[in-house]
Amino acid sequence: MMKMAKGMAATSLVAIANQVNAREIPMEKTFVHHVFFWLKDPKNSEARKAFENGLQGLVKVPLVQSYHIGIPVESSREVVDDSFTYSYIAYFKNEADQNIYQTHAIHLKFIEDCQHLWEKVIVYDAMN
Amino acid sequence: MMKMAKGMAATSLVAIANQVNAREIPMEKTFVHHVFFWLKDPKNSEARKAFENGLQGLVKVPLVQSYHIGIPVESSREVVDDSFTYSYIAYFKNEADQNIYQTHAIHLKFIEDCQHLWEKVIVYDAMN
Repeated sequence: MMKMAKGMAATSLVAIANQVNAREIPMEKTFVHHVFFWLKDPKNSEARKAFENGLQGLVKVPLVQSYHIGIPVESSREVVDDSFTYSYIAYFKNEADQNIYQTHAIHLKFIEDCQHLWEKVIVYDAMN
Repeated sequence: MMKMAKGMAATSLVAIANQVNAREIPMEKTFVHHVFFWLKDPKNSEARKAFENGLQGLVKVPLVQSYHIGIPVESSREVVDDSFTYSYIAYFKNEADQNIYQTHAIHLKFIEDCQHLWEKVIVYDAMN
């Protein structure tokens, strides 16, 4: 699992939201870019570390408003697909920003550095 | 697309984050429950409205910290699956809360009221 700087986490969206007693609140107009990665060798700790480092670099693209990097929560429910290795959500203000992100140098470098690690990717883009 | 109360949107996570100049910040420990729905009749506006109303009821489960209800952003990229009808993300503090949500009366009512509308569901649960 990804390590996160304690200082950053303390000012995360969720922490901020809790401070103002937020609950059941919709996210404002937000482009959700959710990517699922299946690594070729998901149990290889070196591959995982390299991939996690890659994601930590990727989120430095300036247009990324916030992000969530996760691993699957196992489930016995039929409708749950817990077969992926990593879940990566990047939040953008709008579709235009996400388009710029796609060809940003940092993104291209991430693909170049890490694409040998995965065997399958599914992307879901949604806008509210 | 889902209509949202203006007042609520104004206090959304993103708006709050922007106020403190947040960027590239990871979400604090958060359970992401991302559900994709394929409606049987995605072009039927009455079916869509009934389903959207169902989701608006669903997010009232008290354990839902925030949510994002979206529709696909079309893409010509091979890795992008834009075939779903609705994307629904509910954020929970942890796995225990999400487990309680699964059997919450509001959730069971949503399934009872709306399951005739969809033909396919995929759930991805991820924890950072």
